[in-house]
Amino acid sequence: MAADTAAPAAPTLVTAAVLIIGNEILSGRTQDTNLAYLARKLNEYGIQIRQARVVPDIESDIVEAVNALRTRYDYVFTTGGIGPTHDDITADCIAAAFGVDLVVSPEIAAILERRPAPPDVMAARMRMARIPRGAGLIDNPQGPPGFFIGNVYVMAGIPRVMQQMVDSLAGKLRRGATVRSRSVTAFLAESQVASRLGQIQDEYPHIDLGSYPFQREGRYGTTLVMRGTDEAGLDAMLEAVSQMIAELGGEAVDVQRG
Amino acid sequence: MAADTAAPAAPTLVTAAVLIIGNEILSGRTQDTNLAYLARKLNEYGIQIRQARVVPDIESDIVEAVNALRTRYDYVFTTGGIGPTHDDITADCIAAAFGVDLVVSPEIAAILERRPAPPDVMAARMRMARIPRGAGLIDNPQGPPGFFIGNVYVMAGIPRVMQQMVDSLAGKLRRGATVRSRSVTAFLAESQVASRLGQIQDEYPHIDLGSYPFQREGRYGTTLVMRGTDEAGLDAMLEAVSQMIAELGGEAVDVQRG
Repeated sequence: MAADTAAPAAPTLVTAAVLIIGNEILSGRTQDTNLAYLARKLNEYGIQIRQARVVPDIESDIVEAVNALRTRYDYVFTTGGIGPTHDDITADCIAAAFGVDLVVSPEIAAILERRPAPPDVMAARMRMARIPRGAGLIDNPQGPPGFFIGNVYVMAGIPRVMQQMVDSLAGKLRRGATVRSRSVTAFLAESQVASRLGQIQDEYPHIDLGSYPFQREGRYGTTLVMRGTDEAGLDAMLEAVSQMIAELGGEAVDVQRG
Repeated sequence: MAADTAAPAAPTLVTAAVLIIGNEILSGRTQDTNLAYLARKLNEYGIQIRQARVVPDIESDIVEAVNALRTRYDYVFTTGGIGPTHDDITADCIAAAFGVDLVVSPEIAAILERRPAPPDVMAARMRMARIPRGAGLIDNPQGPPGFFIGNVYVMAGIPRVMQQMVDSLAGKLRRGATVRSRSVTAFLAESQVASRLGQIQDEYPHIDLGSYPFQREGRYGTTLVMRGTDEAGLDAMLEAVSQMIAELGGEAVDVQRG
């Protein structure tokens, strides 16, 4: 095979799983938004989420999920369960998953002690200073840090706090390929584009081609999303998809590059 | 033990897992809202979600998740991947998970054929008529049905369609206990309530007591949520929590019963 027709070397993907901990997500009381934020932010860092799980505040469920995910993906990011109340058991569970003790972090204790409080309130707050032996800290500009041990990163569940924690990890994680995207919308039904779309997918097997139907103002439409690491391939695929839309009598609208 | 002091018989819980299938959720392009809807609707049916997973459009990932979840929970509800395009592989994966063939459902085919279309468009649409051998159908008033096989219920990813499908299951699933809730909010920090809250949780071990902190208009607050099947226990626990709030100098606001 001539060198100039060889396929580009497959870029290194760094993968992650997200573990969302909390009864309130599974009961429908709280709408999770952390997964979508993490997905976008981690892709900026060159890390791709390949699975997410939501588990209740039950130790055996959390430990099992942590151990299943940390052996399978490069990183695990957890959200929730690191506050001061009895139902905040994430630190205990991570320690159990790694088979290590919980210890008091002097750095976190010092941060917690900055704000004076009666002894019983301070004692409750100190629950947040407990981390698995050997863990490092994740910065939190407005409160107690999160922590990481091995490839597992443990963050708050409150979106504002979780976002600040993951933002503070910029430049501190192993970087893989960033996935880029192209998308285009047409007022054609999915079944109209399906056959040609499958052919285009076969021509670009290294790029994911997703098809998302919608109904708007009484018209059927489909948004076609291409995701991959090969920018030239993405542009060529977008061109092929746009041409398909034109040939089917549609109009390619809302073209986006990400 | 006298009969009138015996603990109430533990109600039968019927459990479920939700499996959300789709790259667009893991990439952050689409915000999932199906889990929260399912949680509330299934609780009306007396079914409790105990785990959720989000997996990409990859056969091995989907099959593995289906088999892990269907053996562990009473029901599995999947969303996504049942449309007419190449990336809609859920039916194939469910058939593979159960070790059965895919067959064409004459009922679904008849529904699809009601709307005329050119042969290639009809052929694409017929992809939605393929179901695992032995599967039953889930009604969809506006389009092709979903299906179920064993304890696995397979529904669309589009929220409006998924909602109609799960609504159509009313009265058709095994019914367990419905979980009721009480919640109350106070402008007290979590660490202020933590110690007393742990004691109250210990007094009512059969009711989940969750603590959800927030910051609003510069004030720290905490919402306390009690969930369980014992209505009298819930009322007594709400009373204990409200008394705690008063004793700590707070005010119990936004009391809700669900």
